[in-house]
Amino acid sequence: MDIQTYLQEKKGIIDLALEGYLPKEGEFTGTLHRAIRYSLFASGKRIRPILAIAAYEAAGGCGDVVLPFACAIEMIHTYSLIHDDLPSMDNDDYRRGKPTCHKVFGEAIAILAGDALLTEAFNLMTKQHLSDSECKDGLLLLNLVNEVAWAAGLSGMVAGQVVDIESEGKEVDLPTLEYLHTHKTGKMILASIRVGARLGEADNEMLKRITRYGERIGLAFQIADDILNVEGKAEKLGKSIGTDRLKKKATYPSLLGLEESKRRATELVQLALDALSPFGPEANPLREIAAFIVKRDY
Amino acid sequence: MDIQTYLQEKKGIIDLALEGYLPKEGEFTGTLHRAIRYSLFASGKRIRPILAIAAYEAAGGCGDVVLPFACAIEMIHTYSLIHDDLPSMDNDDYRRGKPTCHKVFGEAIAILAGDALLTEAFNLMTKQHLSDSECKDGLLLLNLVNEVAWAAGLSGMVAGQVVDIESEGKEVDLPTLEYLHTHKTGKMILASIRVGARLGEADNEMLKRITRYGERIGLAFQIADDILNVEGKAEKLGKSIGTDRLKKKATYPSLLGLEESKRRATELVQLALDALSPFGPEANPLREIAAFIVKRDY
Repeated sequence: MDIQTYLQEKKGIIDLALEGYLPKEGEFTGTLHRAIRYSLFASGKRIRPILAIAAYEAAGGCGDVVLPFACAIEMIHTYSLIHDDLPSMDNDDYRRGKPTCHKVFGEAIAILAGDALLTEAFNLMTKQHLSDSECKDGLLLLNLVNEVAWAAGLSGMVAGQVVDIESEGKEVDLPTLEYLHTHKTGKMILASIRVGARLGEADNEMLKRITRYGERIGLAFQIADDILNVEGKAEKLGKSIGTDRLKKKATYPSLLGLEESKRRATELVQLALDALSPFGPEANPLREIAAFIVKRDY
Repeated sequence: MDIQTYLQEKKGIIDLALEGYLPKEGEFTGTLHRAIRYSLFASGKRIRPILAIAAYEAAGGCGDVVLPFACAIEMIHTYSLIHDDLPSMDNDDYRRGKPTCHKVFGEAIAILAGDALLTEAFNLMTKQHLSDSECKDGLLLLNLVNEVAWAAGLSGMVAGQVVDIESEGKEVDLPTLEYLHTHKTGKMILASIRVGARLGEADNEMLKRITRYGERIGLAFQIADDILNVEGKAEKLGKSIGTDRLKKKATYPSLLGLEESKRRATELVQLALDALSPFGPEANPLREIAAFIVKRDY
């Protein structure tokens, strides 16, 4: 199966599952539900949940045990986008070609939609398999929820976002930029992959290799994002380009130049592929996604 | 032990535990950590975690297994206050006698401090007891985390806050007001109590009674809060009084009058006490807290 077909197929599965997991609209909370759906179904690429599924399959997992975790991670990703776009944060009016959540529903509802998505993610991860689970599962699941919480919080994504906000308009050095990216995007990408692999019952050696893969593509993904903000097509990306430079954001291209940034992204993808070398064809989707990450134009 | 001494003692234990659970300040995230500490140690009453501990003890629990959950619930409560105070929500400049988080640290950091506290709460609840736990514990803990997530999210606290925001300046009827309060404050108070009781291994009959107690004091607590906003002393409360009327917020006093509101609060406390009738002296703190809730002046 070619990678575009694979991505499309998995995206379909994830969209359907997300639809099923969302609670029904309440009598009093219609606006909130509409705001959540508006952002959650705003044609995201679903890269994180697809990575979770691909890592699950690479580790030998089958069935859909991984789906609640994959979807919860996408909810957390969506919450982070809604909050990042707020006027007091990045102040973005468009995301994926549509007005941002707060432009449509107002700031209060946008903040609450983010809060609700973050909370629902934990609701979803903990409500599956509560009945007739085996002994080991309870502790494993608890452990996986913990891995996601750790990656999303004070030691992960939120820390990255704080550094991002505080770096705006300042001279930033490479260690700060790497801290920013490994935390803001890297930790959750890594968590997606590790949670998938652990649910698929990867052994220690496999998990170590998949972790290395995840660290490398996490960084490659961000460098590619920075490059797209310079060279991408606005209509493909669904957002304005050149905004990093306008906001004087430190990026890989601004610190290292475009050519060196591209070289690094390509090198990281190669290192990611190297980490997977002992895996068979079951890891092909992971391999293809790695290549896709730097070749994509959206 | 009189109730004030009991509350003081438990508050001391909770403050110490919260201090220990908070991650150390990171190299890049000093401001975020300061914002979190500023709000988390802003002399809150710690009613929710104290209720969790009291319910745990009433059910026969001993030791401090309940502490991570009690503290996580206080983190969730603190996040909700930080976000509620934001300019686009209640736009409050003072809380507990101090400038609100966004007044001191700016809106972006306040939003992120709330996000981080919510996420850390789930981190904390899932990282305890991961080693050498017994079989049953994993599933029970997962179940309890789920109960908290459920109470905090789209079917609970966030839904209540949405209704609160959307009701401002509107004529609101009693069913809407009750939905607002049972969701905005009631569900998390109930979750605190139920999680404590379940950790203390309450049997079904005990849990049913403690649940009834929790539903009743949750509502009594909110009615008492509304009354305090009319009759309280600003210096005791650490916030302005009369603000509900200024903002044309629907409250129990505005819908039912002061006297009827007081009668209801007292009646609810009596019903809460009735639910505890089969319990012995181990439930005395729960009983005293119920009475305290309507008698308090802060």
